[in-house]
Amino acid sequence: MMVRLDDYMDIVDDRTIAEIYQKAMPLIGTDLVHINSTYYGGGVAEILKALVPLMNDVGLDAGWRVLHGYPEFFGITKSFHNALQGEADIDLSPVTTTIYSETNKEFSIYTHLNHDFVIIHDPQPLPLIKYNRKKQPWFWRCHIDLSNPHDGLWRMLRRYIIRYDEVIVSNDSYKNPDLPISQTIIFPAIDPLSPKNIDLTDDEVDSEMDRMGIGMDKPIVTQISRFDKWKDPLGVIDIYLKVKQRVDCRLILCGSMASDDPEGYRIYDAVKEKAAQHIERGDISIIVNEKATAVNALQRRSDVVLQKSLKEGFGLTATEAMWKGTPVIASKVGGLSIQIEDGENGCLLAPHDMDGFVDRTVKLLRDDEIRSRMGEKARETVRKRFLIPRLLLDYLNLLGKHVNKG
Amino acid sequence: MMVRLDDYMDIVDDRTIAEIYQKAMPLIGTDLVHINSTYYGGGVAEILKALVPLMNDVGLDAGWRVLHGYPEFFGITKSFHNALQGEADIDLSPVTTTIYSETNKEFSIYTHLNHDFVIIHDPQPLPLIKYNRKKQPWFWRCHIDLSNPHDGLWRMLRRYIIRYDEVIVSNDSYKNPDLPISQTIIFPAIDPLSPKNIDLTDDEVDSEMDRMGIGMDKPIVTQISRFDKWKDPLGVIDIYLKVKQRVDCRLILCGSMASDDPEGYRIYDAVKEKAAQHIERGDISIIVNEKATAVNALQRRSDVVLQKSLKEGFGLTATEAMWKGTPVIASKVGGLSIQIEDGENGCLLAPHDMDGFVDRTVKLLRDDEIRSRMGEKARETVRKRFLIPRLLLDYLNLLGKHVNKG
Repeated sequence: MMVRLDDYMDIVDDRTIAEIYQKAMPLIGTDLVHINSTYYGGGVAEILKALVPLMNDVGLDAGWRVLHGYPEFFGITKSFHNALQGEADIDLSPVTTTIYSETNKEFSIYTHLNHDFVIIHDPQPLPLIKYNRKKQPWFWRCHIDLSNPHDGLWRMLRRYIIRYDEVIVSNDSYKNPDLPISQTIIFPAIDPLSPKNIDLTDDEVDSEMDRMGIGMDKPIVTQISRFDKWKDPLGVIDIYLKVKQRVDCRLILCGSMASDDPEGYRIYDAVKEKAAQHIERGDISIIVNEKATAVNALQRRSDVVLQKSLKEGFGLTATEAMWKGTPVIASKVGGLSIQIEDGENGCLLAPHDMDGFVDRTVKLLRDDEIRSRMGEKARETVRKRFLIPRLLLDYLNLLGKHVNKG
Repeated sequence: MMVRLDDYMDIVDDRTIAEIYQKAMPLIGTDLVHINSTYYGGGVAEILKALVPLMNDVGLDAGWRVLHGYPEFFGITKSFHNALQGEADIDLSPVTTTIYSETNKEFSIYTHLNHDFVIIHDPQPLPLIKYNRKKQPWFWRCHIDLSNPHDGLWRMLRRYIIRYDEVIVSNDSYKNPDLPISQTIIFPAIDPLSPKNIDLTDDEVDSEMDRMGIGMDKPIVTQISRFDKWKDPLGVIDIYLKVKQRVDCRLILCGSMASDDPEGYRIYDAVKEKAAQHIERGDISIIVNEKATAVNALQRRSDVVLQKSLKEGFGLTATEAMWKGTPVIASKVGGLSIQIEDGENGCLLAPHDMDGFVDRTVKLLRDDEIRSRMGEKARETVRKRFLIPRLLLDYLNLLGKHVNKG
């Protein structure tokens, strides 16, 4: 089960693998810890699941801890996430901010950080830096757009952020101009050897599709995303209904519920309600919390994958589909515009360009040749830029910079 | 918010506090880690929430980590729990035992244990010892009866257990005769300063009862327990229906769902179904996942608390009620027989003695004087034997024994 760097040698080019081993040399025995807030569900957990064992494999002593918190705490940090992405309605009362800081303070009592480096992921464990005696470089790895945050929230978070040595964002446009500390870009990545991305035979794909009860008699359009308003699943249903007037096809909405995302259940109910009669007729399927292999099969068997996000951290579900050679029609937001070049390895549209989404979907569904050409280019893009060995190399470069300082 | 040992000085006797400080001296700076499998829900999490900060307060470097696992893993370990308590039906196929061991193996990759002591709680993280290079004493603190486990399961678990330096059980009768290593008894304890146990004013109690919608016009009989077959909530409903023919009263079933307990939802549904018409009439209330203060109020306002367990680790919910001066009628199983002396500080009956439960409940409901006398004695029992400072002292004694060896 345990993957080693060696196993990636036939997937990414040799030069990357060799460079990783070289850059790891001065870091051998270095003790570092990643802290995030969920063990499964969501891109961050998937990255850590692949990255941390690889860091250990190349000689670092890399730990991973998950912040303890009550559901109330995760409700609050979810609202922070939304407000960082521009939502105006947020409760910043003393009760709320105290639960946020006290949860971190309490965790720090159980969690003694004597490591050489500390890497904190996203806003949930951000305050930990205040409650630990800092003896080492701390990095805040934020997967959310920080360019235009809610004012009051930013004032509160900023007091923690400026204690860090460096902030890592996913994208140049996500940097915050109001931050007096270094901001580095590291693109996220997917793991080609995880159950979600590993190669499947046609038989394996078919049997997963059968098991989920998805008919393969018509073309399949799919969006795979958490049930989250920023992923606009209701907009996807509107697009599908228009597409279907021109090309008969099915829509699959496949999403997971993260353990730190109480809001997901409300969005899920709204989707179910809107799609009710189409679900009954078998045109739309809603698939929740499926195992990774099923998502893998679905991305492989879909003719077109939509990613109609209104805001996006990076859009790793698009990366996953692209890796499988399936063309993605996506909104021009966040990391999606870094991954996709419109008309080349996929389609990129303004997030509210409903007609554009409909037209491109129809066009792709009608033209096998374009789909296959775009899909191939998509796979090459991911191979070169968005696989986990490259992410590992970026971290080694970052850590190496700070080791040399010391 | 953060409680210190000092704060217990008016609650337990001075001698205990002084002894704790003395026993902590040779352990100052000692680095230890507790590992269990859930951050909230259940007695183990509550104990650690109180114990770990106190250990740090008296000078130890005490950490607490929660094992990462998928829901599938927790389904398996729940079935282990049941089989340790005597259930015959268990899946011990290679798939199951592999998920059990691999989850631990994977966690060990992220979790480097360089501490002076490692304390593992219950079966979920038991295999960790196999996947770490052991450099220190390891203790397995098991809260479950080990005296008569399922054969096949025991053979599998035993291979991990015998690697430990010492096993800690809650009760002399829970020791396993077939274990070639030292078995120590440490009684569990409750935290009198936690929100669940701290003193409340009458007004605070009333307002919590109002908020939960529980009428206080009739006597109240309560069982507080996870929705678990071993707590026999269906049996409690049978008892209540017979009691109600003789004394008009209400029944409250109050339970939490632990994040590592998928079976709870099934039991909960069965309870709801059985009690449906009484719930509608307002005689029975089912209260789930209430906040700690509400449980506290309920234990204080109840006239009688039942603990009709068929199997019990220790029965800390009984301890909590006793601490509040509420008499408990309990089954003579597990730690309940250690806590309760029948007719003195509560009532102790054979677990299947339905008539006994009915008669005692009726008797107590009819006699204010007996209730108050038993309740006072119950509080004294807990003060002397089952509060968290005593538990801390037991751990210090255990660790001290091993430090002197080294």
